[in-house]
This record gives sequence, structure tokens and C-alpha cells, in this order.
Amino acid sequence: MTAAVLCIGTELTRGELADTNGPWLAARLTELGFQVARVEVVPDDEGEIVAALRRLSERASVLVCSGGLGPTTDDLTAAAVARALGVPLVCHEPSLEAIRRRFERAGREMSPSNSKQAELPEGAQALSNAAGTAPGFAAFIGDCRAYFTPGVPRELEHLWEAHIAPRLRSVAVVTSHQVRLRTFGLPESAVGEKLAGLEEQHAGLTLGYRASFPEVEVKVHVSATSQADARQTALVVAEEVRVRLGAAVYGEGGDTFPLAVGRALRSRGWRLAVAESCTGGLVGHLLTRAPASDFFVGGAIVYANSAKTRILGVNEETLRAHGAVSPEVARAMAEGIRRAAEADVALSVTGIAGPTGGTPEKPVGLVHWAVAHPGGTSVTTRVLTGDRGQIQRLAAYVGLSLVREIALEERSSSLLRVATSG
Amino acid sequence: MTAAVLCIGTELTRGELADTNGPWLAARLTELGFQVARVEVVPDDEGEIVAALRRLSERASVLVCSGGLGPTTDDLTAAAVARALGVPLVCHEPSLEAIRRRFERAGREMSPSNSKQAELPEGAQALSNAAGTAPGFAAFIGDCRAYFTPGVPRELEHLWEAHIAPRLRSVAVVTSHQVRLRTFGLPESAVGEKLAGLEEQHAGLTLGYRASFPEVEVKVHVSATSQADARQTALVVAEEVRVRLGAAVYGEGGDTFPLAVGRALRSRGWRLAVAESCTGGLVGHLLTRAPASDFFVGGAIVYANSAKTRILGVNEETLRAHGAVSPEVARAMAEGIRRAAEADVALSVTGIAGPTGGTPEKPVGLVHWAVAHPGGTSVTTRVLTGDRGQIQRLAAYVGLSLVREIALEERSSSLLRVATSG
Repeated sequence: MTAAVLCIGTELTRGELADTNGPWLAARLTELGFQVARVEVVPDDEGEIVAALRRLSERASVLVCSGGLGPTTDDLTAAAVARALGVPLVCHEPSLEAIRRRFERAGREMSPSNSKQAELPEGAQALSNAAGTAPGFAAFIGDCRAYFTPGVPRELEHLWEAHIAPRLRSVAVVTSHQVRLRTFGLPESAVGEKLAGLEEQHAGLTLGYRASFPEVEVKVHVSATSQADARQTALVVAEEVRVRLGAAVYGEGGDTFPLAVGRALRSRGWRLAVAESCTGGLVGHLLTRAPASDFFVGGAIVYANSAKTRILGVNEETLRAHGAVSPEVARAMAEGIRRAAEADVALSVTGIAGPTGGTPEKPVGLVHWAVAHPGGTSVTTRVLTGDRGQIQRLAAYVGLSLVREIALEERSSSLLRVATSG
Repeated sequence: MTAAVLCIGTELTRGELADTNGPWLAARLTELGFQVARVEVVPDDEGEIVAALRRLSERASVLVCSGGLGPTTDDLTAAAVARALGVPLVCHEPSLEAIRRRFERAGREMSPSNSKQAELPEGAQALSNAAGTAPGFAAFIGDCRAYFTPGVPRELEHLWEAHIAPRLRSVAVVTSHQVRLRTFGLPESAVGEKLAGLEEQHAGLTLGYRASFPEVEVKVHVSATSQADARQTALVVAEEVRVRLGAAVYGEGGDTFPLAVGRALRSRGWRLAVAESCTGGLVGHLLTRAPASDFFVGGAIVYANSAKTRILGVNEETLRAHGAVSPEVARAMAEGIRRAAEADVALSVTGIAGPTGGTPEKPVGLVHWAVAHPGGTSVTTRVLTGDRGQIQRLAAYVGLSLVREIALEERSSSLLRVATSG
């Protein structure tokens, strides 16, 4: 069944407020098994709202609208619905009473503009709003079930849970299943090629890709005649995707790459220290977005050369002879922080993030990583492309993946070779 | 003139990714003087895209579309545009060559799926994309000027600045001016209250607020009969906003808070070192997003207690007596890293970012900062609210603002008192 979402508000079409209701409603409708064919945003303009209601009610079986139910003159949704249906606005006494009580409880006087919020299109069903003043309402526009809620996210969510979702559950038929696989190490185009032909092999399968630099998420979405069938096919396909993408798949669903690195370290009982030059603290930040004290000790941000010498004890002679961005200094940094922090394994990153500071011999994007671990120290060198932010982010990810591989003893250098391209 | 925005992607209609391109484009079009009549989001479905193109091109004089230009099979925008125009897709040789060169520079082999990205609707004008692989393109659909860009925000923004905005400026009638003021230290509601009544005093003035945690941007937007008048009024109002918000305004337009901190340090000739516990590297990361070597030395991430002792020389007795989250340890961390890194000024942050680890005496959100500088060491304590990510972010910002204030010798404690509330 097809659904549509309509968000009403001039602050949205002017881009002053980013619409969060549309994505939220789209996600909830998708969860219930609806196919969301469209999310529209229109200004507080009665003509535009009426046109949108007609357009969307023709296209979808279910329509959820948010916004335009407030007390001010620019709140026009109820009037627009009445016009679209060719009925008058009438005062809904129980809603007016509820608004009155709400103001009484708050010890405030009710203004005439608030009584406007109890005026609903004739024949519409009021949806009581325990989270705010304005009631929502439901109405059929042609054959389309339409639901109207205030734009305040808290009130919208309340009305969804209390009234709309229970009503839609009885009409929705869930016959799809989705598995989200999270990958790092292959550019989006390579992921797509490795999965070429898969969609043709399974009826009802759609593969979706979402690049969130430098990661790529693969969504395995299957529609079938029953949810059990959909789930079965999705799991089979997800397994095939894991085989084809190999070590690039690090997790599923809401997993994150730093958590995957943490699991690998934990499996060894290792605690990690870092020494960051061009990443300036980003590796530590990524690792500590979730609690990490069981696998992360800390480290050093050695942005200036003096910090490398003073905090990590990198030999001034090594710095002079090879330069701060060199395999030798990367090695000295990793070994220095491993010793200083008494860690089991240590990662260092030194490079030229740009936009300035590059030379023909040492271009912007040149990065050296070293991992010092109980088995020795390995050094990796690569030239990354992108702007400063991308080089920093990719440098942090590649460093973490080197640590993860050593912890997992899967030294697949091929994974890293492609990790550096967009 | 009327404009419309179309965002294409099943991840958007499924609510898996919140659309940020729609609001961004709506804001840019509004700035240029267009009235945005609609923002639509449709899935990666050729039929839906074709229908949307027809619908929107009838309604608006200008249409900007994002998404669906990637290399994978679910990227259908170019094909849909060709179908809407009744023309074939043809290979655009200069774009193909640009893609080839991009892969060559990265030392990677170009895959056949990437050459698909050079296939444009016949007659469309390619818009070169220095920020990514896929070119954008421009075409007339009926009388509507339509522009197509990849969905990756960085590439979208590049194409907007390089190609679309310059083209639209020549067709738009601009009689408005906007000034964006960047603030940190006041919650959005307090900013709104301090600016109350301003809109009524100036004809054509709209104030917009955009909270980007923990910052709040104030947009002073003025429409007038000429652009010169609009600009004049906007500058007068911006000055009044600066007076009313005081030290909370740190910059304008594309300025960032870390850059403002860097300016304050530079004005003193000071170089900063940091010692981060609960922020785990975030302060360093914020400072090094832009080149910072003239005011930032580096520092230590002392996530575990052992790191505080080993890397910073914090006394074990101090740690035992007061705990890692204490004013005493904050002081020892700042003084330790100032000494170790030979910095002029040093900032330390230690706190409980949560979600676990809180106690009745030391709740989640408790943070101590210390700034060690030539005049001594000052310690600040506060309990922040929010989830782990928000506490870390706010802790980093408050720490940076303490450094900035000391560098500017503006010890306005009032600014910091409010910085911690929502």
C-alpha cells in the first residue's frame, strides 16, 4: 500500500527550519509496511495546501500531514482540508472543552485564537492531543485515509502513537524485510559492481546504497507475499552480500566502525593508544563517541613537531633527517605512545591534510600510519584524495582498520588498497 | 519568481536518512529572492521521478533536483529527465574524460558503472563537478529552468556555488539582503527573547534562527524595494543584534567557533595545548578542522586513569584522593600538559559524559575545565545536560570559550552561566 507525507509551513519552504517530521513519518510508515511514494513540503498557503491534498490523495491510500494547526493566522490546514472536501468548518465541542481545561490547568486565560483550534472540517474525526492544545483529525479525501497533526514534533509523535499508528496497523499489510549491512574499504561504485546481477536473481529484491563518507551502507530490501518469505530471502541475500564484499562488511544495522574496532581489540584483551598528527584528535573522538574505556587508553595529539619530541620522545635527529611526515617518524610515534601509555597496541597517523603544506615529494594527502603491537611494528603509506576534512576522516578510518586487521589477524592488504579512493 | 526543490532517494522516502539538501536548497533559493512553492521527496523510481519533474516544472520557473546521479543501478535521475524530455541519454565526452582523469589521479581503475555517470539527456548542459565523480547538468523542462546535482551535500554545495547560483543570480530579482550572525553561549529561546520586538521595528525584516548544537545562528533577512535599501537595513539590524546578544556573537557568515578561538590566541601570540579526558580528542579535532599550527601545539587524550598518570604525570595520590573527575585533577592535567608540551596556555577537560558512570555525588554531565596560562590556572565546574554526544560537544565548546575569554581578557562569567542550558 502506498503512503504519502505532507509537511506544511513557510518556515520549511524558506529553509529556515529543516523538516524533521517528514523523515520521521516516512520511517514510521515504512516500518508499518507502507511504500512511501512522496514526501512534500508546502508553504502556509491555502491554495498550495488544497492542491497538495488533492494531488497526494489521488496518488496514495494513506496520507499523513503535519503542521498548520496552530492558533495564528498563518495556520490554514483545517480550512484547506474543508475546502478540499467541500464542507464547512464546524466547532468540535469536546475539543474546545479540552482546550479550555488545558488553559485552566496552566492557570492561563484562553485567547479567542485558541478556540479556532477546535474548528474542524465537518465530518472529520477529532484525534485528542494530550501533548498540546490543537487536536489532530482524520478524514477520507476520496479513497485516501488522511491524518492531520500539529507540526510540533512532540505532539506529532504523541498523536502518531496514540491514534494514527493503531488505526494504520489494521490496514497495513507487512510483507517486506530489510537488512542493513555496514561496510568500509570499498568505494560505492566497487560495492555496486560486486553486487551486480544479484537483484535479477531474487524476485522482490531491491538493493539500496547509502554513502556516508567514508562508509557505504548496503540495504537489502525484499518484498514478498508474506513477511516470513521476505525475511528468509533477505537473510539469504545478506549472506551472499557478505561473501561478495568480504572483509569490507564490518557490521549490521546500527553498528559503527569504531565499535567494530573495539570488538576486535576486546577479543584480544588489547588496549589501544593513539598518536595523532594530521588527524588532530579525530581518531580518539571516533573511538570515544561510545564508552570505550575497556579498549582505549588515550594518547597524544602531536600536531606541532615540538609536541612529537616533548610528549612522545621522538628523536629530534629522526625528525630533522626524515621530516615529520615520514615512515620513520610514524614508527617512532607509535612505539613512543605505546611505551608512554603502557598500551598493548598503538596507532600513529602522520600526514599532510592540506590544503597547504604539500610539496612535489610530499603531496597533500600523503599519510603514514604505524601500528606497534606485541608482534612488532608495521608501517603503511598511502596518498589519499579529497579535501582536508575527507583526508582527515579517511586517515582516521584507515588507521582504525589497520588496528582492527592486526587484532583480527586478517591482513588483507587488498581491502586497504581500495579504501583510499572515493 | 517561483522555485521548487526535488530530492530523489528511496533512503529519504523510507526515512532512513533525513533530507538536508531540501532545506539547504530552499534556504539558498530564498536568499536569491525566489519564492519556494514546494519541496518534494520521491523514491528512486523512474516513473515517480518523471511525474515529479512534470508536476514541478509546470508549477515553478526554477527547479533544483538533488540525488540519483551515482554509479549504481538505483541511480535513475538522468534517465528520468531524458524520458520527461523525450530525448535519449548520450555520453558527454568531456565529462567522461574528467571522470577518467579523476580515477587516474587516484591511481584507481575506472569501472564501467562510473562511465554511466557521464551519460546525460541529449541537449542538457553539463555542470562540471570538481568535488566528485558525477557531473551535474542543466536543462529546460518546458519553460522551467531545471538543475540536477548529486545528493552528496558537499558536491551539491560545490555545484550550487560554481554553476547554479551564478546562473540564477542573472534571472532572479534580488531586493533582499541577509546577514548571518554566529553565536555560542545562549540557548535558542534566550536568543529569541533578547531579540523580541525587533521585527516590528523594521519593515521587511525577518529574523531566522538555526540551532546547530551547541551553536545558534541568527539570520537577519531584509526585503526592500531595492537591494541597497535591504542591505542598509540589514547592517543596521545586525549591529543591534550584536549589541543585544553581546559576547555570544563570535562571528559572521562562514566563520567557525574554533577559528574565533584561534584568532584570540593569535592576537596574544599564544600557542595552546589540550588534555582531554571525557571529550576523547574532540577539542583537538575541532581545532584542527582548519590548519591551526600557528596557535595549536597538540596535547594528550587521557581517557584512562593510567594515561593521566603516565602521559601527564598526574599524581596518583591526587587521583586516588579526589577521583579522576575533580577540580584538582583538572588543574593537574592542564598544568601537566602546559609543561609537557611547552605551551603558553593549556586547557584540560575531565567529566562524566555518560550514559553510565554517574553517581549521586558525581552525576552524568559533571565536567571540570582548567585553563593554565601565564597569569595562573583557573578551574571551572558545571553540570551539563544532554546525551553523551551533546555533553562531549558542549564540554569541548565551553572549554574553548574559556580559553578564548582568557585570551581576550573578557572574563564574562555570565556568558558561561547560560552556555550549559538547552
